[in-house]
Amino acid sequence: MDLLKRRIMTDGLIIDNSLLKVDSFLNQQIDPELMMKIGEEFALRFKDEQITKILTIESSGIAVSVMTGLLLHVPVIFARKKKPKVTGDDVYTTKVHSYTKGESNNIIVSKQFLIKDDNILIIDDFLANGEAAAGLANIVEQAEARVAGIGIVIEKSFQPGAQKLATAGYRVESLVRIKSFSNGQANFL
Amino acid sequence: MDLLKRRIMTDGLIIDNSLLKVDSFLNQQIDPELMMKIGEEFALRFKDEQITKILTIESSGIAVSVMTGLLLHVPVIFARKKKPKVTGDDVYTTKVHSYTKGESNNIIVSKQFLIKDDNILIIDDFLANGEAAAGLANIVEQAEARVAGIGIVIEKSFQPGAQKLATAGYRVESLVRIKSFSNGQANFL
Repeated sequence: MDLLKRRIMTDGLIIDNSLLKVDSFLNQQIDPELMMKIGEEFALRFKDEQITKILTIESSGIAVSVMTGLLLHVPVIFARKKKPKVTGDDVYTTKVHSYTKGESNNIIVSKQFLIKDDNILIIDDFLANGEAAAGLANIVEQAEARVAGIGIVIEKSFQPGAQKLATAGYRVESLVRIKSFSNGQANFL
Repeated sequence: MDLLKRRIMTDGLIIDNSLLKVDSFLNQQIDPELMMKIGEEFALRFKDEQITKILTIESSGIAVSVMTGLLLHVPVIFARKKKPKVTGDDVYTTKVHSYTKGESNNIIVSKQFLIKDDNILIIDDFLANGEAAAGLANIVEQAEARVAGIGIVIEKSFQPGAQKLATAGYRVESLVRIKSFSNGQANFL
């Protein structure tokens, strides 16, 4: 997705040739027009998959998921990283380690929102080690629903996540794939 | 906003005549079409305010804010409740108590995303005691920017938040206002 590559080149911040910060359009400040373009791309790639719901994880996956959901006419569910006081105990949960945050969280989805016949599109902002996406897929499978595909905004292809998810049999669609960082620049696949 | 009232009546869950759960269309499962309708309503109400940015708080404020931002052609910033490892120290922060979650959080916004001339629309899903909205307004004022208004999806008018924000001089626009709960039903103003 060239628009997104260009945006990463102009506004992404690469730290120590290892971390990519896209806080100015995705992770803290959000560009709604770009989110809509990303939503259009996901909707196009998964249009033949009979998606019934989108599953993402708070917080940075929500904006792109809602745009995709608007275009595919399906609801969006976001997994929570912390259980609110008013959520009951009838939840699916699994442990996910975040390398960015340096901690493990139990991610949580209320059981009522996933049913056996669901055909779920998982969406997340980044794919690095694949922990979040694998955790979401695990929750879908606990509900005996089907993972129709995994849509990723930015894949760091030099980390094992994409390969791990492909090996597990999932269809992964990443809008941009970064093979390396060098001299403060992202090198795309 | 009648559409939203009807949705609360059909899909909202009232617990002990005090808590309203709208997990099925706003707080865990999100209805993207409804989010767009809410965005249209906020965009209409604040169209003459020369909004430059929207400020909200993760996670449930993000979906409605992104739709509003799409229609007003402005970026959306979301305050974080926890500092990610990759965020620097150049942040605005203030303490906010959440009654729903039963805890206090320091909410955080990177300084680079708010400038002195900004005209900020604050958006949040619920207004009860007004802690989150007041915290966001405090951050806007730390940046010496202006709070152009506060857009709320659901106001619990029997709690002091709306009055407190109005007394502080803010324009508050709540799409539905609940005056009480009785017999498991919401009574609207």
